[in-house]
Amino acid sequence: MSEESRETLRYHVDGEIVPASEATVSVEDRGFAYGDAAFETLRAYGGEIFRWADHAARLADTCETLGLDHGLAEADLKARIDETLAANDLADAYVKLSVTRGVQPGTLDPKPADDPTVVVIAKPLPRGGVGSEPVHDGPAALQTTKTRKPASRALPADAKTHNYLNGILARLELRVTGADEALMLDPAGNVAEGATSNLFFADGTALKTPSLDGPILPGVTRRAVIEIAEEEGIPVEEGTYTPDAVREADEAFLTNSTWEIRPVETVDGLAADGDGVEGPLTALLSRLFDRRVEERYYDGERL
Amino acid sequence: MSEESRETLRYHVDGEIVPASEATVSVEDRGFAYGDAAFETLRAYGGEIFRWADHAARLADTCETLGLDHGLAEADLKARIDETLAANDLADAYVKLSVTRGVQPGTLDPKPADDPTVVVIAKPLPRGGVGSEPVHDGPAALQTTKTRKPASRALPADAKTHNYLNGILARLELRVTGADEALMLDPAGNVAEGATSNLFFADGTALKTPSLDGPILPGVTRRAVIEIAEEEGIPVEEGTYTPDAVREADEAFLTNSTWEIRPVETVDGLAADGDGVEGPLTALLSRLFDRRVEERYYDGERL
Repeated sequence: MSEESRETLRYHVDGEIVPASEATVSVEDRGFAYGDAAFETLRAYGGEIFRWADHAARLADTCETLGLDHGLAEADLKARIDETLAANDLADAYVKLSVTRGVQPGTLDPKPADDPTVVVIAKPLPRGGVGSEPVHDGPAALQTTKTRKPASRALPADAKTHNYLNGILARLELRVTGADEALMLDPAGNVAEGATSNLFFADGTALKTPSLDGPILPGVTRRAVIEIAEEEGIPVEEGTYTPDAVREADEAFLTNSTWEIRPVETVDGLAADGDGVEGPLTALLSRLFDRRVEERYYDGERL
Repeated sequence: MSEESRETLRYHVDGEIVPASEATVSVEDRGFAYGDAAFETLRAYGGEIFRWADHAARLADTCETLGLDHGLAEADLKARIDETLAANDLADAYVKLSVTRGVQPGTLDPKPADDPTVVVIAKPLPRGGVGSEPVHDGPAALQTTKTRKPASRALPADAKTHNYLNGILARLELRVTGADEALMLDPAGNVAEGATSNLFFADGTALKTPSLDGPILPGVTRRAVIEIAEEEGIPVEEGTYTPDAVREADEAFLTNSTWEIRPVETVDGLAADGDGVEGPLTALLSRLFDRRVEERYYDGERL
């Protein structure tokens, strides 16, 4: 996004719509001081948030893990998102909702979140309908990183927080490789997820994805894909997998709210079968995902 | 600190001195969005920063780990700290210096830090000289937590960053225990450090502290204490220790820049030997630490 287009955007901060350039938090906000914040990345299609109930539930789970009782109703948070979309006249958008314990000068011990900070950022993210251009930058080049996911007893993987350095360190490793997403392993060396995505792969027997028993974020798009596959009678297996299982897969793809379903072109420099062409299962699931979005959020008018 | 006293403080943000209430960063600053920031907590004695060279070196190490090339000279950072102390007319103070990659809307991948964000916070922290009141709230009650330190291959322990959730989660566990500092273990179950402090203990053979081979922050006060002990001919051992070794120690204390040397009164509810009285080695090291601060930063005038 250019500086120019950013200047016309308006964000929601602490109950008020403000120009993006004036959207700030105190340097003593715990979100800045400690990354002590829960967040959700959301997608608006046709002015409506994709699977809002799933996001709201996960945000509540994250806040419970953080002991962050912000006292705001789910409907209040949703209203702030809708106000932000309206203020920017956005129907198809990327949205980020963050909640912190607010300004608490002093010690690391959290005090009650009597005055939480709530921030909503929204940016245009066009969706052209079935057959349109994908929202990612093309197929992903995955690279296994030395940076591993922390154990959940150090940082719970199912909490989505502003403590994002683990993913940043993994991405920094990619600079010398040409890859654009990290394939991160759990402490035991099994496959976990990408820095900002969940992983799926297929080997001719089933669609496979690392189980939530490991340090895996329970992705909303991950869940949507599993539901679609099950509805279509595609066998889905959630398990524990080695990096070799992914390297030797017939095809693989990544999911997150922004990318939706993003094909993987290479893993550790090795091309997936099909020589760069999207695998058949990836293509099928992408088409089914698109159709569901079209039917649910655009009344199927662009099908 | 009361809201009232905070209102008179002035902080240093991006090269300017501003009232604390106006000290803000963008919601798209990577420090807020991801906790992607390096920081140091410092102590000013008589207007001078305690062991600035050590802090500057550690900040540089953190920035290197984060791939954060802020381009600012050490003298520039020091000047901002001095300006902040002067603007608040502070001689004895708590100081926090933070550096982020700045405002970078967009993806998780860090771009070059062409316009880094630099924040300096300073607050009064009186020091009365030898024999004065300690700066901590009395002896610590330590409690082993279920929350463990992350492995360094997930989050490098020697990098001091705004990703502080691991320590917050540990502190949250203390709420039901009455303890006020966490005794955090490494992934293997050995003793690492407190949520905001390094640990020392003594068992009649030596002064012991977990080795930097583990996931331990290389504390500036930790190093100062080791140097003092070695100068005084007290045997110092840096090693790998079980929680039981700490529970069964004759005495224990914590160190950080704010607390300096803080005695431990109980470990997991068990009183250290001496029934709440500061152990003899802790008392000796505290006295020696105080004397060195007085001699170095106050010309010994209050000895």
